[in-house]
Amino acid sequence: MRAVVLHAFGLEQLKLVELPDPVPGPGEVLVKLRHASLNYRDLVVVSGGYGRQMRTPLVPLSDGAGEVIAIGPGVRGLAQGDRVMTCFFQHWLAGPPSAQALGTSLGGPLDGTLRELACFPEHGLCRVPESLTLEQAAVLPCAAVTAWNALAELSRIGPADTVLVQGTGGVSLFALQFAKLMGARVIATSSSDEKLERVRALGADHTLNYARDPAWGKAVRELTAGRGVDHVIEVGGAGTLAQSLRAVGDGGTISLIGVLSGARNEIHLPHVFMPQVRLQGVVVGSRATAQHMLDAIAAHGLLPVIDPRRFAWTAIGDAFEHLRAGKHFGKVAIEIAS
Amino acid sequence: MRAVVLHAFGLEQLKLVELPDPVPGPGEVLVKLRHASLNYRDLVVVSGGYGRQMRTPLVPLSDGAGEVIAIGPGVRGLAQGDRVMTCFFQHWLAGPPSAQALGTSLGGPLDGTLRELACFPEHGLCRVPESLTLEQAAVLPCAAVTAWNALAELSRIGPADTVLVQGTGGVSLFALQFAKLMGARVIATSSSDEKLERVRALGADHTLNYARDPAWGKAVRELTAGRGVDHVIEVGGAGTLAQSLRAVGDGGTISLIGVLSGARNEIHLPHVFMPQVRLQGVVVGSRATAQHMLDAIAAHGLLPVIDPRRFAWTAIGDAFEHLRAGKHFGKVAIEIAS
Amino acid sequence: MRAVVLHAFGLEQLKLVELPDPVPGPGEVLVKLRHASLNYRDLVVVSGGYGRQMRTPLVPLSDGAGEVIAIGPGVRGLAQGDRVMTCFFQHWLAGPPSAQALGTSLGGPLDGTLRELACFPEHGLCRVPESLTLEQAAVLPCAAVTAWNALAELSRIGPADTVLVQGTGGVSLFALQFAKLMGARVIATSSSDEKLERVRALGADHTLNYARDPAWGKAVRELTAGRGVDHVIEVGGAGTLAQSLRAVGDGGTISLIGVLSGARNEIHLPHVFMPQVRLQGVVVGSRATAQHMLDAIAAHGLLPVIDPRRFAWTAIGDAFEHLRAGKHFGKVAIEIAS
Amino acid sequence: MRAVVLHAFGLEQLKLVELPDPVPGPGEVLVKLRHASLNYRDLVVVSGGYGRQMRTPLVPLSDGAGEVIAIGPGVRGLAQGDRVMTCFFQHWLAGPPSAQALGTSLGGPLDGTLRELACFPEHGLCRVPESLTLEQAAVLPCAAVTAWNALAELSRIGPADTVLVQGTGGVSLFALQFAKLMGARVIATSSSDEKLERVRALGADHTLNYARDPAWGKAVRELTAGRGVDHVIEVGGAGTLAQSLRAVGDGGTISLIGVLSGARNEIHLPHVFMPQVRLQGVVVGSRATAQHMLDAIAAHGLLPVIDPRRFAWTAIGDAFEHLRAGKHFGKVAIEIAS
Repeated sequence: MRAVVLHAFGLEQLKLVELPDPVPGPGEVLVKLRHASLNYRDLVVVSGGYGRQMRTPLVPLSDGAGEVIAIGPGVRGLAQGDRVMTCFFQHWLAGPPSAQALGTSLGGPLDGTLRELACFPEHGLCRVPESLTLEQAAVLPCAAVTAWNALAELSRIGPADTVLVQGTGGVSLFALQFAKLMGARVIATSSSDEKLERVRALGADHTLNYARDPAWGKAVRELTAGRGVDHVIEVGGAGTLAQSLRAVGDGGTISLIGVLSGARNEIHLPHVFMPQVRLQGVVVGSRATAQHMLDAIAAHGLLPVIDPRRFAWTAIGDAFEHLRAGKHFGKVAIEIAS
Repeated sequence: MRAVVLHAFGLEQLKLVELPDPVPGPGEVLVKLRHASLNYRDLVVVSGGYGRQMRTPLVPLSDGAGEVIAIGPGVRGLAQGDRVMTCFFQHWLAGPPSAQALGTSLGGPLDGTLRELACFPEHGLCRVPESLTLEQAAVLPCAAVTAWNALAELSRIGPADTVLVQGTGGVSLFALQFAKLMGARVIATSSSDEKLERVRALGADHTLNYARDPAWGKAVRELTAGRGVDHVIEVGGAGTLAQSLRAVGDGGTISLIGVLSGARNEIHLPHVFMPQVRLQGVVVGSRATAQHMLDAIAAHGLLPVIDPRRFAWTAIGDAFEHLRAGKHFGKVAIEIAS
Repeated sequence: MRAVVLHAFGLEQLKLVELPDPVPGPGEVLVKLRHASLNYRDLVVVSGGYGRQMRTPLVPLSDGAGEVIAIGPGVRGLAQGDRVMTCFFQHWLAGPPSAQALGTSLGGPLDGTLRELACFPEHGLCRVPESLTLEQAAVLPCAAVTAWNALAELSRIGPADTVLVQGTGGVSLFALQFAKLMGARVIATSSSDEKLERVRALGADHTLNYARDPAWGKAVRELTAGRGVDHVIEVGGAGTLAQSLRAVGDGGTISLIGVLSGARNEIHLPHVFMPQVRLQGVVVGSRATAQHMLDAIAAHGLLPVIDPRRFAWTAIGDAFEHLRAGKHFGKVAIEIAS
Repeated sequence: MRAVVLHAFGLEQLKLVELPDPVPGPGEVLVKLRHASLNYRDLVVVSGGYGRQMRTPLVPLSDGAGEVIAIGPGVRGLAQGDRVMTCFFQHWLAGPPSAQALGTSLGGPLDGTLRELACFPEHGLCRVPESLTLEQAAVLPCAAVTAWNALAELSRIGPADTVLVQGTGGVSLFALQFAKLMGARVIATSSSDEKLERVRALGADHTLNYARDPAWGKAVRELTAGRGVDHVIEVGGAGTLAQSLRAVGDGGTISLIGVLSGARNEIHLPHVFMPQVRLQGVVVGSRATAQHMLDAIAAHGLLPVIDPRRFAWTAIGDAFEHLRAGKHFGKVAIEIAS
């Protein structure tokens, strides 16, 4: 079988190679992967941004979907022919995270989805509901589960709430879609008027161009009659947290997700404790969280937004460049030919 | 000013009488009541069904809305001209209930809303949002707050959940509307196909005629692929709890609300503890719960369902008969002429 | 290897037989069982009280502890020599229960712990902390996990709370011990003054002899200045729920656990919904719940109460009779000789 | 009556002056204040550290206790002779905070407790339980309620948890006492070995001298077998958050409380979102939170730690200097002579 392998850090180090076909061990399932998708994290991994936390050689990407073609001894819940989606953490089943579980993410340190065949533990997969194609399922494991975890598990928003989503990256678009499912009002920001038009089409109630209004926190306050929003999906990191603290209301929550704008961030502590705000770190989610999200997606026939430009896995470098350039709207999907 | 007063238990004991105009004391607000509405509880109160828990003479009804026409000393949050709705419990502000707070319900033991003028403590009222008329606000204090408390506060349903609502009484219709706001799937029961058609128009995803299928618990299981529902709004009491226990899934919740079918009920305990089901008593809700509900109603422009047949307050006996006959669909609204 | 097998329902049908040594399959662990313990449920199972839900032949008992003597392929978290305790449900790992997980209890339908050797899935066991002997660990899987689930997971009691525990059965004694760990005040009931003296020695703050005061719900109210308790551990079933509803305060919780006094129970619904009481079914708990409990037990060096009369596994009939007679105080422990 | 009034910012601007006796308005209670206590916040207020958020003239201090000597019209829950304690926020009754409620803190912007007589709204006071003297009650409103809110309401720690408390300030000592009530293990830090000995006497399980080990986060990890603590009471602010993030375990909570070391703080965001840590701002708490805390204090006869050096209110400047010097251990109590 073939796989894309990162031999050393750097986009140019991704090579399509021939590897021996894997054989499912006890409790494992052999999957023929059909589709994968990119997350910004994958770009950081491949570029070497995590330093010694990651290793090479590595099969990149955390997100994928395919069909079960064989099962190992002791597998009971899946059978040949089942359509499955990867879980970001292969050993985080339910409940709060353990350090051990958090060390089992696909696409680094564990080999990821950019290969024709892969073995996963039975509980490292979720069954794909009939309402989704394999390509649609393949864009969910990281970004969509993160958004669901933030809005439906670590917090639970509802129809009296207002949610702010930053930009139009994967987590933000899923957060917008899920927030609308839960009846919340959504305010979305972007630096592109064209993208803002598209998030309005997806259901955003208000939009703000942060390029034109860098102090958008104040504008958000005004949109909420001075009360501030109940929940912020904070993906921007360093540049945006100060504005998020201005935008969030007393007792509100800021979900900290992002790695986009840099790791270090100065926060003004009184802006956190005086209005009793919660900053909640979100690290994707467990298999149970993914399953719960799939139940909601299936019940509503909700479809993920996928960027119209598709990439073959042999053009993985182009796909990463497309992601880095920020021209996409929706998840960047990869087809694993065979 | 005039008021309808219950001089002794029995529908025929309701009389329109002249009373002195009330004067707002410290912290109180004088309200000119314009609309009221009926709950099944009012029928039980007026009929003497609560026995010595209630007293006469009594001004009946818990639900009403009107305008502030004067404020007493020390009132800060309301002013003349404000449109307000009554809170069912006049002294339950927020948090879990206290015995003391639970003793302050309108329409018994405290005098209720069927009068032209009434004084309420400032915190015994909620401001009516602009999206609602006073008549629409007047149907919310008991049934709608109960439904919201059950689905959004004591539990928190979401877009992966299925909710069962029994019949087409006030709490059930509000529960249907709120459950749809929160993205849940709704199964509704009734003994009337015509009413089932109307709940489908309100958004119910599935309907069941329990007259034709008295063992509807099994049918609900089948509708949910054997898993059972996540939440049951149990209003029927004695006759229905056994079916609800059959309909609810493992780890699910049954909100116990009803007084319709009698007070005593035999339950099969293993059907509760073996699937780890929660039976949650719901007693309307606090002012904070009512306010939270109004925020959601205003954000969505949601309108309550009001039965087309309106009653003047002088025809209060007819209104109660209409409620008792069960011919209504939606809240029975009363106009307080003046 | 030898095992006690129930060949048909009835205590007299328990026979010590020779069986082939089991071999651990993929993901499984072979355990040399050293100790087991009895729960009232085991008596119901063996007596045929669950009817067709159970099958024979069956190795009875859910609770046991021993040492790992071999591991199957794919096992990563346990190794030879590890001391382990059984999980009641072999496949309920964390989170809310699923119907599937609830079908995997030891001692029926799955073969239980009354045997020298048994294979369990790796995740069907918990490691025993150093503070406990294997005998002490062997009395925890059912009763202690149930008590912990009720007080620490499904609810979370604290130092401002009062908890009522009924009788001196396994769940009640563990609930008493855990409630004291969490700082709660405990009221305990029993029909035996001698047993009440012993629960006082274990930390109970107040005791009530329900034989002398069958209407003990009222006495509990008086002990709590009229407010009622925050939590009731209801193990008695049919005979006691009415008193528990009298004893519990507004907004309080009754954990429904018991099978002792019969399955059917009449409840007065207004006593549930008017004070907004929650009746919470509790069905033991997940492996994560057991692990969380073991962490607390280890942190505090807490020791379970074990009845002084020990039984060899060959005297299993005597052990069951001892349990049935209700003369024990603490868990009835069984030694699996070898 | 006499009061200490801050005429302009600066410790030296505190003057004892004669003011007219206050008269309770509607819903208000006239209290003869007997004791008060200092919080670090009071020092910031008096020194002008909050800038234009505060105003002069101002009666300083948020914490106090005394006796009701008269009630205004409409007061129902308190009577002459009742012993009462102030609530930090006069209009935050229960539930999450509102911006409006957060603007009603005593000792700025509202006049505080350093006066002989004061009127408070009935719901701005809590009744003092019999187990406490007025002096003991007077040290609770700010620091103790904050600690309770962090550990028992915004989170709910239990007997399997480990809590880290920083230093020996008011919030930290109360957090230590409450954490022990709830069965948690406590690790305490200080720069003084003598103070560490005293926190051990109060129940701390482990202590760390951060002066000798500035990278104490690593030492905490080692004390918890690498897992990190479940909860950090973060009072230090800028200097300590990085160590707290090192000390906290996956899925853990850091309660952000402090103003001690400066307002601005650089955080390394991946240290928050990767282990799914929650940073929870805590702003004292509501009256319901204070009442819940008092229930626990009364149930356990818990006594606050008060620094042995008492100050008369005429020596308020000395009291502030004592606090600023950091020589105290326990709350700095002030006697209001009369």
